[in-house]
Amino acid sequence: MPNITINHIAVVVEKIDEALPFWRDALGLPLSKTEDVPSEQVQVAFLDVGESHIELVQPTTEDSGIAKYLAKKGAGMHHICFEVDDIEAALAHMREKGVELINDSPKERNGRRYAFVHPKSTGGVLVELYERIIQT
Amino acid sequence: MPNITINHIAVVVEKIDEALPFWRDALGLPLSKTEDVPSEQVQVAFLDVGESHIELVQPTTEDSGIAKYLAKKGAGMHHICFEVDDIEAALAHMREKGVELINDSPKERNGRRYAFVHPKSTGGVLVELYERIIQT
Repeated sequence: MPNITINHIAVVVEKIDEALPFWRDALGLPLSKTEDVPSEQVQVAFLDVGESHIELVQPTTEDSGIAKYLAKKGAGMHHICFEVDDIEAALAHMREKGVELINDSPKERNGRRYAFVHPKSTGGVLVELYERIIQT
Repeated sequence: MPNITINHIAVVVEKIDEALPFWRDALGLPLSKTEDVPSEQVQVAFLDVGESHIELVQPTTEDSGIAKYLAKKGAGMHHICFEVDDIEAALAHMREKGVELINDSPKERNGRRYAFVHPKSTGGVLVELYERIIQT
């Protein structure tokens, strides 16, 4: 049995402030973190749900990838991120199975290794992989 | 702290058989159940991921709601289902907060009480609520 969990579901929104009344107040998920990510021209908010999170993503410029996605597809679910123990092993296994990867080797952000899988191999879903961080 | 978890993420696919090579074989999620649901004109497959599931949904007719969704939007994530302890209380709280519900009171299927929340209140995401079944 592989040790895989859902780390987060990313939801693209026009404005985080206008989305929080549903996700935090009406659904009741605790807001755990908000963050400005200038490198990706977005603001994000993380809400806790069991072992997973909902990540609200708001574009901060008009020409970022997320802003273009929002303009084209509208607000809604953007990607699903799974957490695995060994990201190199997971990517190697996927390559063996013929899966098309967006990131052929892991990238790193804030000490977290991650990679994206192309939606054409998943049945239309943008999938991200995170390597689990073992708390010491 | 509310006791909310993600029960499942529903993914609409053309063919479950063509999606399993990614979700089951490449990602490695165990397939726990496949089911024909004639009342909704779909076949579904559930894969386990931590405390949650991925639900692959394939239309079995050309004029079902899911078939029309697939034709219009393409394959991809369809809805996210949260599990709550008391669905009547959750719906009442949402109404108080001005959330628009698709099902104003819970429906029932296979002994499971559920209701859908309108995407216009969530920032574009179709949200389902399940009432947790207490195992005895």
